[in-house]
Amino acid sequence: MSTDRVVLAYSGGLDTSVAIGWLADQTGAEIVAVALDLGQGGEDMEVVRERALACGAVESIVIDGKDEFAEEYCLPAVQANALYMDRYPLVSALSRPLIVKHLVKAAKEHGANVVSHGCTGKGNDQVRFEVGIGALAADLRVIAPVRDYAWTREKAIVYAEEHSLPIDVTKKSPYSIDQNVWGRAVETGFLEDIWNGPIEDLYSYTDDPATPREADEIVIGFDKGVPVSIDGKPVSVLEAIQQLNVRAGAQGIGRLDMVEDRLVGIKSREVYEAPGAIALITAHMELENVTVERDLARFKRSVDQRWGELAYDGLWFSPLKRSLDAFIAEAQEHVTGEVRMTLHGGKATVTGRRSDKSLYDFNLATYDEGDVFDQSLAKGFVELWGLPSKIAAKRDQASGS
Amino acid sequence: MSTDRVVLAYSGGLDTSVAIGWLADQTGAEIVAVALDLGQGGEDMEVVRERALACGAVESIVIDGKDEFAEEYCLPAVQANALYMDRYPLVSALSRPLIVKHLVKAAKEHGANVVSHGCTGKGNDQVRFEVGIGALAADLRVIAPVRDYAWTREKAIVYAEEHSLPIDVTKKSPYSIDQNVWGRAVETGFLEDIWNGPIEDLYSYTDDPATPREADEIVIGFDKGVPVSIDGKPVSVLEAIQQLNVRAGAQGIGRLDMVEDRLVGIKSREVYEAPGAIALITAHMELENVTVERDLARFKRSVDQRWGELAYDGLWFSPLKRSLDAFIAEAQEHVTGEVRMTLHGGKATVTGRRSDKSLYDFNLATYDEGDVFDQSLAKGFVELWGLPSKIAAKRDQASGS
Amino acid sequence: MSTDRVVLAYSGGLDTSVAIGWLADQTGAEIVAVALDLGQGGEDMEVVRERALACGAVESIVIDGKDEFAEEYCLPAVQANALYMDRYPLVSALSRPLIVKHLVKAAKEHGANVVSHGCTGKGNDQVRFEVGIGALAADLRVIAPVRDYAWTREKAIVYAEEHSLPIDVTKKSPYSIDQNVWGRAVETGFLEDIWNGPIEDLYSYTDDPATPREADEIVIGFDKGVPVSIDGKPVSVLEAIQQLNVRAGAQGIGRLDMVEDRLVGIKSREVYEAPGAIALITAHMELENVTVERDLARFKRSVDQRWGELAYDGLWFSPLKRSLDAFIAEAQEHVTGEVRMTLHGGKATVTGRRSDKSLYDFNLATYDEGDVFDQSLAKGFVELWGLPSKIAAKRDQASGS
Amino acid sequence: MSTDRVVLAYSGGLDTSVAIGWLADQTGAEIVAVALDLGQGGEDMEVVRERALACGAVESIVIDGKDEFAEEYCLPAVQANALYMDRYPLVSALSRPLIVKHLVKAAKEHGANVVSHGCTGKGNDQVRFEVGIGALAADLRVIAPVRDYAWTREKAIVYAEEHSLPIDVTKKSPYSIDQNVWGRAVETGFLEDIWNGPIEDLYSYTDDPATPREADEIVIGFDKGVPVSIDGKPVSVLEAIQQLNVRAGAQGIGRLDMVEDRLVGIKSREVYEAPGAIALITAHMELENVTVERDLARFKRSVDQRWGELAYDGLWFSPLKRSLDAFIAEAQEHVTGEVRMTLHGGKATVTGRRSDKSLYDFNLATYDEGDVFDQSLAKGFVELWGLPSKIAAKRDQASGS
Repeated sequence: MSTDRVVLAYSGGLDTSVAIGWLADQTGAEIVAVALDLGQGGEDMEVVRERALACGAVESIVIDGKDEFAEEYCLPAVQANALYMDRYPLVSALSRPLIVKHLVKAAKEHGANVVSHGCTGKGNDQVRFEVGIGALAADLRVIAPVRDYAWTREKAIVYAEEHSLPIDVTKKSPYSIDQNVWGRAVETGFLEDIWNGPIEDLYSYTDDPATPREADEIVIGFDKGVPVSIDGKPVSVLEAIQQLNVRAGAQGIGRLDMVEDRLVGIKSREVYEAPGAIALITAHMELENVTVERDLARFKRSVDQRWGELAYDGLWFSPLKRSLDAFIAEAQEHVTGEVRMTLHGGKATVTGRRSDKSLYDFNLATYDEGDVFDQSLAKGFVELWGLPSKIAAKRDQASGS
Repeated sequence: MSTDRVVLAYSGGLDTSVAIGWLADQTGAEIVAVALDLGQGGEDMEVVRERALACGAVESIVIDGKDEFAEEYCLPAVQANALYMDRYPLVSALSRPLIVKHLVKAAKEHGANVVSHGCTGKGNDQVRFEVGIGALAADLRVIAPVRDYAWTREKAIVYAEEHSLPIDVTKKSPYSIDQNVWGRAVETGFLEDIWNGPIEDLYSYTDDPATPREADEIVIGFDKGVPVSIDGKPVSVLEAIQQLNVRAGAQGIGRLDMVEDRLVGIKSREVYEAPGAIALITAHMELENVTVERDLARFKRSVDQRWGELAYDGLWFSPLKRSLDAFIAEAQEHVTGEVRMTLHGGKATVTGRRSDKSLYDFNLATYDEGDVFDQSLAKGFVELWGLPSKIAAKRDQASGS
Repeated sequence: MSTDRVVLAYSGGLDTSVAIGWLADQTGAEIVAVALDLGQGGEDMEVVRERALACGAVESIVIDGKDEFAEEYCLPAVQANALYMDRYPLVSALSRPLIVKHLVKAAKEHGANVVSHGCTGKGNDQVRFEVGIGALAADLRVIAPVRDYAWTREKAIVYAEEHSLPIDVTKKSPYSIDQNVWGRAVETGFLEDIWNGPIEDLYSYTDDPATPREADEIVIGFDKGVPVSIDGKPVSVLEAIQQLNVRAGAQGIGRLDMVEDRLVGIKSREVYEAPGAIALITAHMELENVTVERDLARFKRSVDQRWGELAYDGLWFSPLKRSLDAFIAEAQEHVTGEVRMTLHGGKATVTGRRSDKSLYDFNLATYDEGDVFDQSLAKGFVELWGLPSKIAAKRDQASGS
Repeated sequence: MSTDRVVLAYSGGLDTSVAIGWLADQTGAEIVAVALDLGQGGEDMEVVRERALACGAVESIVIDGKDEFAEEYCLPAVQANALYMDRYPLVSALSRPLIVKHLVKAAKEHGANVVSHGCTGKGNDQVRFEVGIGALAADLRVIAPVRDYAWTREKAIVYAEEHSLPIDVTKKSPYSIDQNVWGRAVETGFLEDIWNGPIEDLYSYTDDPATPREADEIVIGFDKGVPVSIDGKPVSVLEAIQQLNVRAGAQGIGRLDMVEDRLVGIKSREVYEAPGAIALITAHMELENVTVERDLARFKRSVDQRWGELAYDGLWFSPLKRSLDAFIAEAQEHVTGEVRMTLHGGKATVTGRRSDKSLYDFNLATYDEGDVFDQSLAKGFVELWGLPSKIAAKRDQASGS
């Protein structure tokens, strides 16, 4: 194999640290490590960067992708009310296309013809990585050591010890975690029995919703579907997510526990936390209720569902995604206004909404003075609305069915 | 007008009590009052029955429709995960077709050629009544005094006093309420300002979720989509709803506050409580996640949405409804098993699920020993899954777009 | 009624000619007649214009809307492959919003506060007119004499004779016709028996497809979904439609005979001719097959269907229509290339297609030399593609279902 | 490999004849050849049966599947108006699950643990075979020599000559053909240039539509969506298809030429003939227009589309397919009546329809005497129908958008 350079999606963890040396051995190539800061917290990114070099990378790049992630990946998810299976706000699914974009960019800048990632062969992320790479740079080859060469954690530990890599292999967490500013996914052995309930130790972004505490009231402002203020103070999209992670997280909001349909054809049990995501989407949905016309709102549900499926299924860079985006963008034209919510006990509850673009018309809705709705119109409407059913029912009755 | 008998949908309240005499005056007909017990609580139904007679009805019928309502109206809603606008479990919408069915039956039994209801001309219920009647008995004429003759509360009070009707007209509630075993809808003037938050006084089926209390753990068993047990004890559908109303209601579950798209073309602000409905649907959705195959689950979302729209839009007795029912019935074939939930703080949170019909396969899902998923299959899958996007992306890049 | 001016949608025919005087009598207002040339042919538009004045209009305006109609109404229909009930290319439905637009413009320019049209109360066009006017100018009032005052043809003839209007009332056609450059709709009494077949005399845009003649071969070029050339010569959208009307019409293409679901709740029997429309949409659909990616194509069918329903249902100026337009516009980005068709015997048959934006890849498709499709990928794809069905089937077999 | 018996899907052609000996060599197993008569015509099935034995099969089974194919595979396609990409009536796609069913049955009867088919790795049929087998008998292993061992026509000829198999290898057709009673698919090298038009020599089921001839008028009767008579004479489903193949084929009906989205991710050029299928579906669609209520008809289009995609995509034995079938079955309840069509010039044109279950109501539809439609209802209907658009337009205008 005549590979000169391999760009590796680097997390700083055991698997991808070990992969640096192993990929170099296998391919004879130089390894360029690329790590993204998507707000996952944890280690200092400079430490991560240096570890890659210590493990043998010829280049180690850290990219602050937080604002880009918030604005170009999380924001469209808010506008699509993106909840896969009506629940999951696509935490990992949203980050993969952004990582792909930067891997491809780095491959071009550093003359690499191979990209590598640490995903297994039974998850969704391999698909998101490789379909994304196929779309952005079809000529790049992909190596996935864990999947293609059946690497295991045990092999990785042996390799790390044999090569004295600067990783603490003794620190064995029972959890497999993926996290970023949009949320956090946790897998672990005992959750693979789907009758077992999650335990408090799983969670990091959220406090226990059952703990008694004061409720928090918040007002989120949107402009054309973009969150622009919290309690009247201007925020960037990233700041909106971060502040909501803190405030909604403190109230235990955004914990999810579900059996999920993976793209590779199996069902899996997943536990997530996404306090900011759930709070933002809850507010956005209600503001759409106020500002989006009924037929558009009804059809948008099918568009939103399909959008979520595409993002989940690794088809971020697909033609259908672009057309759905165009639909959604147009639908956001008037999604402007404020939503007040109470954050408490694991729930974000809308209590008020106001908007200059509101389609709620007090004078049409009220039953008090000022009512301008002409009730005499209803009779004709009701009759013609029900006419097809009525004709069909007469036919059915005549048929004895 | 040569009407002999009018069947009136009778609630026992001011409007329909007054309507008895007024309809008799207007039409020269005898009035048959029909009241349904759908678990709305409040007055004794015998008192309601006698009041209609005291107001001048020649016949006054009370029907215990609770089990029929639970089994033939609420249950299909559970199986369709019916939440209009992703929120509202169709409290009033489900009861109307059942009331219509009994009005039509009474009209036939008592030789009536007119049916009357107390709805206004700007709500959904007039449509549900009249489209339903048109479907079940197209030859019946409908009179809606409030809408067709512009009756107001003020006129009704004067009429009641002038005729010394046995109704306490001084007891003026600020709330307009519709309730049954499936839930409760409340409208009131100050909520017509959609920035105003609901107050605790609105609620009757639910306690304040913010009050600290112990969580309640519950296990709901389903057989082919039908709730059949609670904590291992057999229940009828009605008992399941009633018990959940008590237990979920005690935890403040099922409060809803939303701006809603009415069928008559306006947006309105609605507050609902439906503790049992929300708890049952939450459990049912998760059991579907475990037992329903992915493609079916994805398509069923669009079927469920359309089902909810039809029920909301007064099209219960429509041909499309029947075909959607057939789809859903087939999809329930394996929705059998148990779901464990924690009821607390206004939320029903699923913590476990088990089923003999589960499609979750531990051996395919696990990352531990026993894993039988063949990861070598993934490479080919990923490549062909992404091929259309990849071909399109190459074309797009060649086009400079 | 304090009306100063009424803008009347004027066709030049009996009903709207009579309406001029009648509306003036009823309202005391001056009548402004507005007629649109949408390529309907027939009388000289100057004759039409003068007739309105002779009938008493204070202003009579003729607008050449042919290019506007082709570009802003017919073209979007091509891009949406708009065929209501998979058949009807929306001949009348597309023209109504354009007429509405010009009526509203004229009302503003001439200070009118009322608009009038000649539609009946059981057709779709009244809805298209009035919903359109409601959207563009909610303050305008509408009078529809035929519907609102139960005008009949007989009354109109009497009125015309009494007032010596310059209309030949003896010329009684058995057909009710609406036509424009996009097509022609014909209704007539004997077609109301849906077992009766159409007769040759009904048709005007098309020759009898059964007549033996030479086939015609044509190449239509598109650029981003816009027809731009015929047989290599540049054409405007209007010219494309006109030329295809002639050439496809000469081959008997575009005749339609169907039972149709009207918006007002009844089924009606309709006969249409739309040679250019059918030929253009046929070519466009096949070019989409070549240039639009599979998932996008599949979803676009539901968008196209909804678009056609909205246009049919009078919701041209609705928010949902705008979002669907945005979706479709994005999807047309690469619908560029040429389609060759044989026009003959009532059919437009595609025989070839070529495009720089093609997603058809000879090297992936061929079974001959040059095949680059890696068949070894298929095994993994097939296995994971079928995995959910397989798991479900195993469960079903274990359940004995 | 410890295989005792392999069941081979046997066509009688070169590839599968050669496979008998080759599979025996490779696996050491006995080969059971299974051939289905699905009305494909050509060789006598007894000749086919004997050839398998002559090539070394230990058992050779021929199954007359024509009626089963018509009733259980083609009929559901009629009821779903199944046209993949609005064109292709699923000729090969429908036959594969039936073949799978009989392969699995034979495997059980003859104690085979392997099934083999002759498909390539870039087509749809491999998926249909293997996903079907996975669903019906997950324990059976599949060998596809052409795909898995890269067999080519050239290798097959050499093998046949070396082993003196009773096949005429000199008879080289330029066409790759799959045919059955539902239709015929043809692929060939020069069609892989999608600008090339099809030539007359490709076709076998249809005469040239351009040849002048007399039109043929036919009346097809349906009972609950099942074709039951032709010109008043009772027919089985198989007879209906066969007779229509003859009569519609003689008029050149059912030729299709399209660029198609294959499941494996590529676009391919396909030419089909399906005279009976197209004629039956055309008649069925129009009878649905007459007997199916509007909302049901609109939603059924999306069900029909998805049904066609599933059948095309090899998911015949999937849970979603079963639920769609239940929907469609319910929708066929009243699809009873007769449709008259003219078959001529490559087109099946409906000219009349009659039904005891018709929803077309002459008295509601007529503009002549007998009209019972109450036009006064329209005003209220139009106003409320357009109210959401009107409110939105006012908001938009206030917003300057």
